[in-house]
Amino acid sequence: MAEDGARPSIEFWYEFASSYSYLSVMRIEGLASAAGVDVAWRPFLLGPVFMSLGWNDSPFNIYPPKGRYMWRDLERLCARYGMRLQRPSEFPRNALLAARVACQGQDQPWIGAFSRKVMAANFADDRDIGSADVIADLLDGFSLPASDLIAAAQRPAGKEALRHQTERACQLGLFGAPSFVVGGELFWGNDRLEDALEWACEAARGSVPRTGTSHLE
Amino acid sequence: MAEDGARPSIEFWYEFASSYSYLSVMRIEGLASAAGVDVAWRPFLLGPVFMSLGWNDSPFNIYPPKGRYMWRDLERLCARYGMRLQRPSEFPRNALLAARVACQGQDQPWIGAFSRKVMAANFADDRDIGSADVIADLLDGFSLPASDLIAAAQRPAGKEALRHQTERACQLGLFGAPSFVVGGELFWGNDRLEDALEWACEAARGSVPRTGTSHLE
Repeated sequence: MAEDGARPSIEFWYEFASSYSYLSVMRIEGLASAAGVDVAWRPFLLGPVFMSLGWNDSPFNIYPPKGRYMWRDLERLCARYGMRLQRPSEFPRNALLAARVACQGQDQPWIGAFSRKVMAANFADDRDIGSADVIADLLDGFSLPASDLIAAAQRPAGKEALRHQTERACQLGLFGAPSFVVGGELFWGNDRLEDALEWACEAARGSVPRTGTSHLE
Repeated sequence: MAEDGARPSIEFWYEFASSYSYLSVMRIEGLASAAGVDVAWRPFLLGPVFMSLGWNDSPFNIYPPKGRYMWRDLERLCARYGMRLQRPSEFPRNALLAARVACQGQDQPWIGAFSRKVMAANFADDRDIGSADVIADLLDGFSLPASDLIAAAQRPAGKEALRHQTERACQLGLFGAPSFVVGGELFWGNDRLEDALEWACEAARGSVPRTGTSHLE
């Protein structure tokens, strides 16, 4: 978390298979840049988080009324944001490889652009982001060394990096994506992106409480 | 739903035990009035809806990380809206009687004020809204015939009215509260109140599609 007077920052937790993460991945860099907030990209896997809550699938699949609503809500929000949307023919898609590659590159300057490419492939072009060929194709588009990056992501250290990151998501109390962490504050959902950025700015000015959850439970 | 050129209207589905319904019950009349939208108050019970999804308690109790987050999120939102908040010592509270009384009065001019009183009792004053004495006290505050209203709510017709309303909530695809229905469009959550009001206004002007969900599933 930013100390008083430091540049504001935010941890952005997202999952490539998550529909509402699509919205925030596309929006965050522009909004954060305009607000002067640094973004720490934190790709992770929702599957283990959902398993810890007793779900063996997306809640949007387990609970059909929630799923029907989500797709319609997403359609309305994409229309508002001017974002393309093509409902993926498979949901949720296997995002393991994409997340491992992103985890390797999360501090690299290409992380935002790569994440947007993956999201557009999944939610606008209905491509199988679980396929190494598709991920390689997306990386090639940036003139990045696709085969090296994919090989590194699949080595033990690459697998461990994502596993560790996902464990940290659980430790932080995350239960869905996208989520935003600003110091001790958790914000859940694309609807809270603007609030989280505002909180980061206020925290950097020292004008909000440092912590606020500990007294609750 | 409003026809083209008719006055815009919205169905507001809420439950007295629901934390996010508290926010919308307090906000909707002012916002809707400013937007020129008529509100049809639709108190219902979440319990049967949750049971149909396989939950025998509030998901905020079943899934502790969601619950911890919700209370903190609610605290932040109440601070923003300038609303009092005292975490109820029992959650969710039994809202059966309050919902039956509200169902009897849902087309009466006192429905908004009564609903706000019940919500404030539960979420700001930590009073047991499951108690007939508390409900009678709140009704007395409006010089309404408390004992007659409570008796009517508990007669077979009063019970049936709420049961029927809750069944309709399920038929509409509701899975949580608050929810807003504008024609064939469902909006879920306090975060969508402003969107739903805007949709109602546009629908009344004939500038949005009449239906939008049928092709999705």
